Amino acid sequence: MNYERFFEEAVDQVHAEKRYRVFADLERIVGEFPRAIWRSEGEAREITVWCSNDYLGMGQHPDVISAMQTAAGRMGSGAGGTRNISGTNHPLVELERELADLHGKEAALVFTSGFVSNEASISTIARLLPDCLILSDELNHASMIEGVRRSGADKKIFRHNDLAHLEQLLAIAPRERAKLIVFESVYSMDGDIAPIAEITALARRYNAMTYIDEVHAVGMYGNRGGGISDRDNLAGEIDVIEGTLAKAFGTLGGYIAGPRSVIDAVRSYAPGFIFTTALPPSIAAAATASIRHLKESQIEREQQQRQAQNTKDQLSTAGLPVMPSETHIVPVLVGDPELCKKASDRLLEVHGLYIQPINYPTVPRGTERLRITPTPFHSDALIGELASALRETWEALGIPFANDRRPAQQRTNRIIPLVTSTAGG
Amino acid sequence: MNYERFFEEAVDQVHAEKRYRVFADLERIVGEFPRAIWRSEGEAREITVWCSNDYLGMGQHPDVISAMQTAAGRMGSGAGGTRNISGTNHPLVELERELADLHGKEAALVFTSGFVSNEASISTIARLLPDCLILSDELNHASMIEGVRRSGADKKIFRHNDLAHLEQLLAIAPRERAKLIVFESVYSMDGDIAPIAEITALARRYNAMTYIDEVHAVGMYGNRGGGISDRDNLAGEIDVIEGTLAKAFGTLGGYIAGPRSVIDAVRSYAPGFIFTTALPPSIAAAATASIRHLKESQIEREQQQRQAQNTKDQLSTAGLPVMPSETHIVPVLVGDPELCKKASDRLLEVHGLYIQPINYPTVPRGTERLRITPTPFHSDALIGELASALRETWEALGIPFANDRRPAQQRTNRIIPLVTSTAGG
Ligand SMILES: Cc1ncc(COP(=O)(O)O)c(C=O)c1O
Ligand SMILES: Cc1ncc(COP(=O)(O)O)c(C=O)c1O
Repeated sequence: MNYERFFEEAVDQVHAEKRYRVFADLERIVGEFPRAIWRSEGEAREITVWCSNDYLGMGQHPDVISAMQTAAGRMGSGAGGTRNISGTNHPLVELERELADLHGKEAALVFTSGFVSNEASISTIARLLPDCLILSDELNHASMIEGVRRSGADKKIFRHNDLAHLEQLLAIAPRERAKLIVFESVYSMDGDIAPIAEITALARRYNAMTYIDEVHAVGMYGNRGGGISDRDNLAGEIDVIEGTLAKAFGTLGGYIAGPRSVIDAVRSYAPGFIFTTALPPSIAAAATASIRHLKESQIEREQQQRQAQNTKDQLSTAGLPVMPSETHIVPVLVGDPELCKKASDRLLEVHGLYIQPINYPTVPRGTERLRITPTPFHSDALIGELASALRETWEALGIPFANDRRPAQQRTNRIIPLVTSTAGG
Repeated sequence: MNYERFFEEAVDQVHAEKRYRVFADLERIVGEFPRAIWRSEGEAREITVWCSNDYLGMGQHPDVISAMQTAAGRMGSGAGGTRNISGTNHPLVELERELADLHGKEAALVFTSGFVSNEASISTIARLLPDCLILSDELNHASMIEGVRRSGADKKIFRHNDLAHLEQLLAIAPRERAKLIVFESVYSMDGDIAPIAEITALARRYNAMTYIDEVHAVGMYGNRGGGISDRDNLAGEIDVIEGTLAKAFGTLGGYIAGPRSVIDAVRSYAPGFIFTTALPPSIAAAATASIRHLKESQIEREQQQRQAQNTKDQLSTAGLPVMPSETHIVPVLVGDPELCKKASDRLLEVHGLYIQPINYPTVPRGTERLRITPTPFHSDALIGELASALRETWEALGIPFANDRRPAQQRTNRIIPLVTSTAGG
């Protein structure tokens, strides 16, 4: 049998749907963030990155880099084992303490990624609860969906941020049945925020446990960077808070924070935590340095919010169809997958600006967009340059401006098919 | 409802089965490998690690550490995005080229861990093949089992390294049905090796695709460190080779190498690859430095084999029940979970030697063991010290010596239950 044929066909299908991805080969430049060297067809060129999730530029912070270098120099480049078999390095122990403190929880547990933290924790929690019913927001991230699936538990999907629908589903289930509400704080493709207070109130009323993904909020919201639950003083109302070390904290890894019993159970039962090499001490030390800095410093958060607002304002003034967003995320509507890809290509090739197109299935068809993430290091001058480049691109490709179209669809409706396409990550 | 109760009960069960794990808090010391600082109850003590999977001590190699530090200093502490959204850093592109070359394959793909590489690749490959039948060795690692489960494909488990059984299962299936044989080269708990030539011959005869996990072999076998398939000149016979960067290569991450079509399909369809932040440039650069070094240098491999043999010889001479092993892994039989834990505790507290006990379900009940991994840095003197400490411990705890027992059970029979316990990793 010619096996390769099946894989070629699968890839052909991605091509046919205009979803085939060529990854941009980038070399970021410490001290010049958001500048990077882009390599393509043997050429190297300096460009500006406008779509990084190193949201605060902490990946180039001197304290973070020096923590990484020092730990590597003293303790080496790897952990050398799983958590249980010689891999629990001291910086990782300190990192878990730091994270528990960040969220005001009894304990925390670090995983090799945010993806794994969601997959392993949701599946294990739901599996350890007898006859658990999971209530999951329809726009939850692929990693949470994997966790829900892997748990084998019953699930009900509630409409995005729809409290009435969530309550309806909670009310149907018997009061004494175990229930787990799984949702995000900041939804990363639209930049909207969940009604956390209301969801936790429903959880109390209907006797449900709560699990929140704060991946796109930690570091960036709250006086100590504990996320939206920190900003709104709600961390105490939520059972389990999940986050990543790879976005605003600028390193790698994911975690959960919560009651000691939950953390200890996940630690003891989740294959994705147990059977894998621990994070290296250099990564753990860098993450701790980053968290500690952002626990004290407000300047990065303030500057990010300011530049995100400036970006929204300047792009709107330029007539571009900026989609509504309550956060640092600035989506600009294109509404067609090919145009979206072409716009991205043109921005990179003609203007030296890198913004990855976001197409189906990450967002619903018809809401294809450029997702822009201004950081504290995107100056007013860079924002001006972005606005002009987008205008030029919109004109050159005939993409509708804000005035040209009826109010844009505001809700995404990410459906992750069984076999997911490349468009998301 | 009191949710915490369920998690407390789950943890109580682990306690009751004597499988509760307290992770050793370790700080490895560059330049003094395998020495490390062990922290416990507020005290810090220097000890010798005898159970690390940093098999060749590459985690403290100056080239590897300096590659990590240099990349962190130039490119920062994180990738800043998923592979598709600004996270494909140049060192990662170079690493994938290096890995394809290492295994003589068209292409390679890097994941955040070996666990994720198995889970994501096996599930995606089996899912893209129509009506695929997976043939899986009964001792395959938890990450491979997760991949098989996640694929939803039909599976048959063949007895460990049992060619007759594998052939029987292959022969039943129609010739034109897609089949994927999934196995390891070195099985890490017993240190035995799969009959790769024979398995690939069966695959050809019965028209099956092959997927091998070389996690415990890459870096350590073959003239260029390509694993057992390199040593035996069989890489060309295998479709997909999976490995880790976190054991002999001393860093973090996992990968597959294979035909371009397979790599491109996994790259385009696997959620565990797509929806997660890419490895940082510092990790990728360190891994590449390690692989390049081990492509050229034989000394680490030779010295590891020599010291593994010395360890086996000295422990056998001391009358200890060394279990048969064809590789660098030296398992010593205890045969009882409590004694195994006590032996490990005594070795650490009395002798300053750290060897994690390996209990059920990682190995079958009755074959509980200490799993010892001598590296090139475990000198003859250290081996002598180990032999005496083990003898003392065996006597103090009344553990049977080699002469005291009938031939030990040689085959493990790892059964990973639905919810896996902590004993494995
Ligand atoms: C909402 C959400 N959760 C989890 C993750 C995974 O985090 P990580 O990149 O650390 O794997 C992502 C994106 O990567 C995400 O967008
Ligand atoms: C056979 C095997 N495959 C895969 C893995 C996972 O590799 P990693 O530690 O890189 O996640 C392990 C152990 O950790 C293993 O023993």
